[in-house]
Amino acid sequence: MSSRAAARLARVAGHISASASSPSTTTSSSTSSTARRMAPTRKHKVAIIGSGNWGSAIAKILAENTTAHPHLFESEVRMWVFEEDYQLPSSHKGYDPSKHSQPRKLSSLINELHENVKYLPNIALPPNIVADPSILSAVKDASLLIFNVPHQFVSKICDQIHGHIVPYARAVSCIKGVDVSSDGISLFSDVIGRKLGIYCGALSGANIANEVAEEKFCETTIAYDPPGTLTPCPEEFPVIDHSLWKHLFHRPYFHVSMIHDVAGTSLGGALKNIIAIGAGFVDGMGWGDNAKAAIMRVGILEMRKFGLMFFDSCKSETFTEESCGVADLITSCAGGRNHKCAKLSVEQGRPIEEIEAEVLNGQKLQGTLTAMEVNEFLKARGKEKDFPLMTAVHKILIREASVEDIPHLLD
Amino acid sequence: MSSRAAARLARVAGHISASASSPSTTTSSSTSSTARRMAPTRKHKVAIIGSGNWGSAIAKILAENTTAHPHLFESEVRMWVFEEDYQLPSSHKGYDPSKHSQPRKLSSLINELHENVKYLPNIALPPNIVADPSILSAVKDASLLIFNVPHQFVSKICDQIHGHIVPYARAVSCIKGVDVSSDGISLFSDVIGRKLGIYCGALSGANIANEVAEEKFCETTIAYDPPGTLTPCPEEFPVIDHSLWKHLFHRPYFHVSMIHDVAGTSLGGALKNIIAIGAGFVDGMGWGDNAKAAIMRVGILEMRKFGLMFFDSCKSETFTEESCGVADLITSCAGGRNHKCAKLSVEQGRPIEEIEAEVLNGQKLQGTLTAMEVNEFLKARGKEKDFPLMTAVHKILIREASVEDIPHLLD
Repeated sequence: MSSRAAARLARVAGHISASASSPSTTTSSSTSSTARRMAPTRKHKVAIIGSGNWGSAIAKILAENTTAHPHLFESEVRMWVFEEDYQLPSSHKGYDPSKHSQPRKLSSLINELHENVKYLPNIALPPNIVADPSILSAVKDASLLIFNVPHQFVSKICDQIHGHIVPYARAVSCIKGVDVSSDGISLFSDVIGRKLGIYCGALSGANIANEVAEEKFCETTIAYDPPGTLTPCPEEFPVIDHSLWKHLFHRPYFHVSMIHDVAGTSLGGALKNIIAIGAGFVDGMGWGDNAKAAIMRVGILEMRKFGLMFFDSCKSETFTEESCGVADLITSCAGGRNHKCAKLSVEQGRPIEEIEAEVLNGQKLQGTLTAMEVNEFLKARGKEKDFPLMTAVHKILIREASVEDIPHLLD
Repeated sequence: MSSRAAARLARVAGHISASASSPSTTTSSSTSSTARRMAPTRKHKVAIIGSGNWGSAIAKILAENTTAHPHLFESEVRMWVFEEDYQLPSSHKGYDPSKHSQPRKLSSLINELHENVKYLPNIALPPNIVADPSILSAVKDASLLIFNVPHQFVSKICDQIHGHIVPYARAVSCIKGVDVSSDGISLFSDVIGRKLGIYCGALSGANIANEVAEEKFCETTIAYDPPGTLTPCPEEFPVIDHSLWKHLFHRPYFHVSMIHDVAGTSLGGALKNIIAIGAGFVDGMGWGDNAKAAIMRVGILEMRKFGLMFFDSCKSETFTEESCGVADLITSCAGGRNHKCAKLSVEQGRPIEEIEAEVLNGQKLQGTLTAMEVNEFLKARGKEKDFPLMTAVHKILIREASVEDIPHLLD
């Protein structure tokens, strides 16, 4: 056997062993054994693009794990910050009049105070997070790219960094939802992958940034299913597979489930908002927890039907079993803003737009927009009737049906 | 073809057609076409054994549907009442001092006032419900038997009516849960079927008796999967199949899903109480909706694993897709007493038994008992580790673990 073939064989063995082991129970032993078998001489460099409150919470996790798994990752996590000036409040415990009496660059405050004082205040960030206002500098040499920016910036950011990343980089998008119009549905992970000429998976789950940052227990789903046609990652690096991503994201308080269904993982985060509005309507009627549970159950099945009908790669269990499916829906129907506004709208007998304006302080409800976009998408394909709950929610929102009709519309 | 063979073929054709149609959209036409093809000359007589608040709510549904489908069912629904004396309060709108100044038999009050004044007050019952204090008279000639009694009475009631029912009768049990011990698990529907020498299916779902009685929208699951070896129902009767049961139970406000998995349908109603305690613990810690959703998601998967491991006939989707599974769990974790007591126990730092005594007014929590029984069952089979959440809940209840350990125990 050639030494090259032997190295390959050893690499496959390492891959299988790493995939089969759970990082939580066998972290250091599996990491070091993976390292030994594959004998990688280099480590992955991690960059996160985005530093809002979800971006910063994820950056904290990444930085904890690059420290926890030094055989796999370089310690430093570079975080791209959309630069802005920020005046540190004098009440801040790190406030020093000699340094902070004038507004300062947010990136320099983050690096000085190890806290994203504007978007994730009062959460200590690991010192191995380095805030970087230059997107090109932030992604330089990074083999693992995490995207966590508002979805409307994805395209422009990709244009900026295209050609400036290593060709063997792999990415994961933490951007919630999908882009729906009557023309079709596009996944943000697909946009990123296509624009950069790399592969991008997706992370989504029942996660609220602040709770994750406070290390309150929750779960998430990461879908990663790269084709075999990518620029290979050099053999000096640890293999980029499910096990590696789990080492990068899994924490004792943030449990990661790795799957292959990127479309299903992304769809849940959008479609659940329509169902949450339906659940809010029913709650507003005072029909009780069982009526609400019925709406949620029907909702899970319609979300799944949508995925299976329009994406060949979708899997049923992504919706019924994963955090990005059933759990995210449960959370959104328990305390989310879509649910809340829909409930108040029925209770007060007022249009949801009025409630939205009053309660959300200028922000827009995701669910009402998604309900309309999904309805346009379905209508263009003659499939409205296959999704009676989503269609009912839309019709109620545009005053073509009333909440009392829901049981009949689902019958 | 013999006329007997032709009749059988017509019957099979009727069966298929009836099964494929939904009663909600095609009620009268499918009923009459079923009737025409099979030319049944007799109708099913319906009896319900039990008249508590769930029994009375179900009796109301049955009586509404025997009226709605006169081709299939005799109008009268006979309801067995465990006789007792009851003093009608003078505030009752039907109170007549000449009749009600002394305690009266509950069955006669129900028949006079068309209301179960003791167990389901303020709900008008259809007049075709006839309360009957004699169990033998109640079940006489009934071909469809609905069981809705406290589970501890099942065995004795079956002994009483054995030999007094028609041999071609079929039954559905609305009794929640299963009977678990270290010896094994028995389904109440199996006990009923075996003791009576007939077949019994099971109804379970996200249902609260009072909400159903008030016609608030909800869903339920009925599992019915008879073997081919039963005493055949005479051909003069409409075929007893999924379609017939759906005609008997489905209402505009009570949506029925028919499945075959009796064990799965029954298990959900028991196991969910363990999960609801776990969700209550996490809520009590203030870990937020996402932690709770994570517990619920893990709980659904453990319930399913339990079903698939111990019952050959169990189906995955009964737990992840049906009202008796995911929806019933959602309801129990939202407002059920197991969740509530567990939450208060953590918030107040006191044993759940104390909270139970205080909050439930002498009633017992189902979940703590089921957690112990299921643990004994699992321990006897060396399977505790396969069910980390159920095992964690039990260990916390017996003070061998603390709620803080949950994320670690699930990792």
